[in-house]
Amino acid sequence: MTFAPDRARAVELDQADPLRSFRDRFVVADDGLIYLDGNSLGRLPRETPARINDLLERQWGERLIRGWSEGWMDLPITVGDRLGENLLGAAPGQTAIADSTTVCFYKLASAALAARPGRTEIVTDTDNFPSDRYVIESLAKEKGLTIRWIQADPHSGPQPERVAECVNANTALVTFSQVSYRSAYILDTKAITGIAHAAGGLALWDLSHSAGAIPVQLDADGIDLAVGCTYKYLNGGPGAPGFLYVRREHQERLRQPIWGWLGRRDPFEMAQGYLPGAGISAMLSGTPPVLGLTAASVGIELAIEAGIGPIRAKAIQLTEFAIELADSWFSEAGVSIVAPREPERRGAHVALVHLEARTLSQRLINGGVIVDFRAPDVIRLGLSPLTTRFVEVWDGLDRLRRMLGGERG
Amino acid sequence: MTFAPDRARAVELDQADPLRSFRDRFVVADDGLIYLDGNSLGRLPRETPARINDLLERQWGERLIRGWSEGWMDLPITVGDRLGENLLGAAPGQTAIADSTTVCFYKLASAALAARPGRTEIVTDTDNFPSDRYVIESLAKEKGLTIRWIQADPHSGPQPERVAECVNANTALVTFSQVSYRSAYILDTKAITGIAHAAGGLALWDLSHSAGAIPVQLDADGIDLAVGCTYKYLNGGPGAPGFLYVRREHQERLRQPIWGWLGRRDPFEMAQGYLPGAGISAMLSGTPPVLGLTAASVGIELAIEAGIGPIRAKAIQLTEFAIELADSWFSEAGVSIVAPREPERRGAHVALVHLEARTLSQRLINGGVIVDFRAPDVIRLGLSPLTTRFVEVWDGLDRLRRMLGGERG
Repeated sequence: MTFAPDRARAVELDQADPLRSFRDRFVVADDGLIYLDGNSLGRLPRETPARINDLLERQWGERLIRGWSEGWMDLPITVGDRLGENLLGAAPGQTAIADSTTVCFYKLASAALAARPGRTEIVTDTDNFPSDRYVIESLAKEKGLTIRWIQADPHSGPQPERVAECVNANTALVTFSQVSYRSAYILDTKAITGIAHAAGGLALWDLSHSAGAIPVQLDADGIDLAVGCTYKYLNGGPGAPGFLYVRREHQERLRQPIWGWLGRRDPFEMAQGYLPGAGISAMLSGTPPVLGLTAASVGIELAIEAGIGPIRAKAIQLTEFAIELADSWFSEAGVSIVAPREPERRGAHVALVHLEARTLSQRLINGGVIVDFRAPDVIRLGLSPLTTRFVEVWDGLDRLRRMLGGERG
Repeated sequence: MTFAPDRARAVELDQADPLRSFRDRFVVADDGLIYLDGNSLGRLPRETPARINDLLERQWGERLIRGWSEGWMDLPITVGDRLGENLLGAAPGQTAIADSTTVCFYKLASAALAARPGRTEIVTDTDNFPSDRYVIESLAKEKGLTIRWIQADPHSGPQPERVAECVNANTALVTFSQVSYRSAYILDTKAITGIAHAAGGLALWDLSHSAGAIPVQLDADGIDLAVGCTYKYLNGGPGAPGFLYVRREHQERLRQPIWGWLGRRDPFEMAQGYLPGAGISAMLSGTPPVLGLTAASVGIELAIEAGIGPIRAKAIQLTEFAIELADSWFSEAGVSIVAPREPERRGAHVALVHLEARTLSQRLINGGVIVDFRAPDVIRLGLSPLTTRFVEVWDGLDRLRRMLGGERG
């Protein structure tokens, strides 16, 4: 048991925060609300309503169908490139934004499996995000493949050595989330991809809890394939479209299965017979969701403006502060702290495990401390560097401390 | 050659139009623009910006993550039911809105093929919408199936007798667009579905050019499966989400392949192992696109308010008027009129075929008459009953007449 920092320390940290002005770039309708869930849904950027209104009134309203040739059609790639180049370490022409994250994941997992015919196994872990697990189950059933499930360690995620034990000449695909949605553990993407490659397989990464929260080096780390979402740390809005990355050297061979008109060469020729479009465009299918793409681009630009270096530095400070408080206050209260202790292995959230997590989360939310409950026993605190203040962390955990101490919260 | 109605006749028709007030419910930024492309992108409803602003500022901005339990999560089904019950003849619990139309089509075509194992053939036509054809090609390749292509008649679409010749005990799936995106021909969905059923196959319909334009009776006509889009006659906005319909009696057996968390029973339990959700919810995959769904719902409600009966009546009048003008003006100008003469077989657009269609379309557009070019030789006039005026039809075709007569347009 150590002494907890007092609230004045949180105020000091906020004053010294080089990103503190970014909070003003977001709508904060109720400054008393303690919002520790920016990793489920990021806040609304102040600029988004004006940008969407311009899209509606000026573009759709005035330009009508002509909008498609005045920028809309290119949005999946232009916004994808902005995201890829500035936040994912991806040179242009490898990132696209469209569809839900789940559909993006399905496309790339299918493409990878088709590129490794004859191989019979997929490696993933039991704490991978549910949609990813379910899609893998579907593809395994459809294609008669076996899933090698790595049992999740609730405090971390699959280590390279453990992955290496499961990968062999039968392995078609290895797929994990870079940052665990539960523990916040950051996997060693480069080492694990290398293990997949050494056995002749491919690796697919889910970056949903990475994008806009930690630096990602897709090109430099030799990553094959990745997907992610834009509504968490990228503040793209509820149900904002997902993104996908396909390494340039794979683009000629890897074919996704949803052959829509926008993935075809010269889509407006509407010709007979599907011919994949050039480069990353072959990964597109239907008409791009222009409203969602426009909102996503505003959030992406804010993260680019802040810079992933300062974002990462603040995420480490915020999570360290939360862990310090939790260590001091909760070590004898039936709470275990799941977040990795080494900052280089910790994403931007902190998970607290408690038997009564479901009830406690609901009481916190009812009292204006918005956290996430993750079944069966996790209270998850998302600390979004562009908007979360250190005093929010202090106040939120203080509220939990009082509850655990017997106060009606 | 008959005498063309003069412009005064168009003015009279507008004055007598029982739907004329609906045009005021849409943004008409430039009243001089002749917009004959509402079947590519419908106009912006006046109410949409306010509804989207409420979504952004009040729901996302203030309620943040709580929005998911305050209605967002149900939008695919609640908006789907409004559309299904009022415009598609579908009792509740069979229609959902999510993903792009292409992804919806992929899901249902896959589900149908999986439900007819051992059958080796898919029947469609060469003038089916490109995305549908390409998806079918992808699935056929993946599953080793044969596509029986019915050669399109440019003036109509596959007749039941022709379909019957192609359907047999090997047929897994029969799929067409109800209204041809080129000829506007309305296929006999009931008869063709019956032919598929008699052979033990399933039928999947694309309603993209039907929804909000002609009455659809999915339940009464025994339709198995259908998809469509919301950005044409439903005025949902650029890239608005698609919809899908699965007949209740098929919902227990038909399984789509993109097993995402929102299609699982109790998605927030995030449990191990996919179990399909109840009813139509099993057709969902990723997080619903809330911006797109909100805009789509405004357009859908406008069509419901107008009523599909009056919409249909005006569509027939508009297309009849366009055909009458084209007959009078173009019969000796190298233009052939593709639209079906029988109103009961004609959707809400009219296609004119001309060798120089590409150039003519571009000149019309440059001159403020927005039409659609469809390769290689079609000028398509979309006549959207809620917004298109008879004088627009007259003025637009008059412009084309002058061009064909040698005037620089």
